[in-house]
Amino acid sequence: MISAQTFSIADVISAIAPCEAAYNAEAQRQLDSLTKPIGSLGRLEAIAAQAYSIFSGQMPQPLRKAVYVFAADHGVTDEGVSAYPREVTAQMVLNFLHGGAAINVLARLHDTDLTVVDVGVDFEFDEAPGLRRMKVRRGSRNMHREAAMSHEELGQALETGARLAQEAREKGHHIVAIGEMGIGNTTAASAITAALTGESIGTVTGRGAGLDDTGRNRKLHVVKRSIKRHFGASLSNPEPLEILRCVGGLEIAAMAGFIFGAAAGRMAMVCDGFISTAAAAIAHAVAPQIADYMFAGHCSEEPGHRHLLRHIGIKPILNLGMRLGEGTGAVLAMPVIESALRLYSEMATFSSAGVSGASPRESER
Amino acid sequence: MISAQTFSIADVISAIAPCEAAYNAEAQRQLDSLTKPIGSLGRLEAIAAQAYSIFSGQMPQPLRKAVYVFAADHGVTDEGVSAYPREVTAQMVLNFLHGGAAINVLARLHDTDLTVVDVGVDFEFDEAPGLRRMKVRRGSRNMHREAAMSHEELGQALETGARLAQEAREKGHHIVAIGEMGIGNTTAASAITAALTGESIGTVTGRGAGLDDTGRNRKLHVVKRSIKRHFGASLSNPEPLEILRCVGGLEIAAMAGFIFGAAAGRMAMVCDGFISTAAAAIAHAVAPQIADYMFAGHCSEEPGHRHLLRHIGIKPILNLGMRLGEGTGAVLAMPVIESALRLYSEMATFSSAGVSGASPRESER
Repeated sequence: MISAQTFSIADVISAIAPCEAAYNAEAQRQLDSLTKPIGSLGRLEAIAAQAYSIFSGQMPQPLRKAVYVFAADHGVTDEGVSAYPREVTAQMVLNFLHGGAAINVLARLHDTDLTVVDVGVDFEFDEAPGLRRMKVRRGSRNMHREAAMSHEELGQALETGARLAQEAREKGHHIVAIGEMGIGNTTAASAITAALTGESIGTVTGRGAGLDDTGRNRKLHVVKRSIKRHFGASLSNPEPLEILRCVGGLEIAAMAGFIFGAAAGRMAMVCDGFISTAAAAIAHAVAPQIADYMFAGHCSEEPGHRHLLRHIGIKPILNLGMRLGEGTGAVLAMPVIESALRLYSEMATFSSAGVSGASPRESER
Repeated sequence: MISAQTFSIADVISAIAPCEAAYNAEAQRQLDSLTKPIGSLGRLEAIAAQAYSIFSGQMPQPLRKAVYVFAADHGVTDEGVSAYPREVTAQMVLNFLHGGAAINVLARLHDTDLTVVDVGVDFEFDEAPGLRRMKVRRGSRNMHREAAMSHEELGQALETGARLAQEAREKGHHIVAIGEMGIGNTTAASAITAALTGESIGTVTGRGAGLDDTGRNRKLHVVKRSIKRHFGASLSNPEPLEILRCVGGLEIAAMAGFIFGAAAGRMAMVCDGFISTAAAAIAHAVAPQIADYMFAGHCSEEPGHRHLLRHIGIKPILNLGMRLGEGTGAVLAMPVIESALRLYSEMATFSSAGVSGASPRESER
């Protein structure tokens, strides 16, 4: 447990324990006793077993679900890397607060508490229900010219995320989805992905919210130059938190901190698209145990996403060609995850329901 | 509309109209006005547009959802084609009525009315809430020796399904999932798939609920012999309803009738796994317009399923390696479908939310 007095991100990270394999085996035995052919629930069985391990041999019911949407602006938008103007970050935060965005609709429908976190939007918001004002800076610095964050700013963003995860746990949430809003943040995520995985910049840089060919070429150039500036041409294995500081963003850092905090607090997590998974990949590079706590809500159309998922070793639940962010793909996966848990907890067993098992001939194999 | 007096399956089929393409274009214009990058909701946009077309330019809210699980036994189980004994069909129906099966859990969680239909189980059930007793015969005949149904039995099963669809509509359901329970029914579905699509029997015959290699070889042999008996070695394009009669089953026929009735009543449908999709493929071969009304809930692990989905031209929403039947994959897709409809109806537009659009440079392309 992390006490408020001694709170430091290093303590949070060192508090992350891997899940115990024994719980997984125990869950599989229970799944095999339920009235269905062995293995016939497919991925749902693996999801249930993972949850059972995360919750140390319990299945919470009702499952209390939350989504945290981290918003920040990006200095690199000065380089013309996005199809949308920078003001859209603040406008979309206001849209979240008025309930009109995609994430609002999905969170309402799937009974998921929504919290919007201003960790670095270039706009001063009034207090509002559902908004946490925890701004580190009005936008990250332009990675094309300098590190996106100072060491202090990075530390503050990480800590902000970790504190929010601790709060989520104190509120009784069992599972948290991680989403974001930040014009320009696919540029940051592409740079992180290239620096972290060694994939080519061309492979992991997409059209974001809708760049044309010229725009994408400009973005490619900016990512290439930024990586060269900060890590040199050779990319000689930079430290993950240094990658985050130089080419990340405030919302990505806060998400990474949140992921550390949620794993330390033994909460299940659902990452969303390319940007939240970039945060997860950074967290994973620092503390590989976080993968035990992580579900991948979906696979985004943004081309770098599948590389990050493979790098972390997590498999997306949904494949619906979405590329919106905000936590939408993560919250859309919540009903699938909750279904797996409910099936585990509520299905009858062969013996309780008086259903015959497979014929001896078959069950002998 | 189908009146009770003149009810005949031919009338039902002739009442099926294709959806109007204009609704689709209208829906896409609305989707493009919502506060998200164009196309960024991926498959959800296509789902919303299809629903808007099915409902003739309306989006029902709340969406009233139901699942119908059709149960029957199969004479062909005498040939040892299933890992489970025949009694399991009745035992699982009782499990449905007691609320302990996977479909019960999912229907409860996803707010979907569940109706179990005994259209041919080899057991006499007492009256029970949620059970419709509409038995045509205590199990289909053994397709390996004779046609699975007489002409009269086929007609009765089709009509039973169509009447239930009409009832579902009268109850106010907007969307109906189609599931089944019947030991031996993957054998019937494999035979239907081979006869209908021309795919090789080996390709479309799987392990069902868990056959070993010996069991699967036996099943393969039975499917091969049954097809040869009824359609000759050449498979010279048999009539779809004759395929259904000879190598189908009572629950598959009832599902086909239900699909005709639901399409005639302009309801949205979600097919489930291999067996319900075999029913959909028969219905589609008779009336290709049914595809306009059909969502594919998921892609099953049973190998014939993907061939049927491709044959009908519908794309699965989920890919979770499930192979349970009962309508589970269809009901699990309900939250995704409902999400698409809600996003369509509830999201703010760029103008209503005061969000800037894409930069002129990008929107000009």
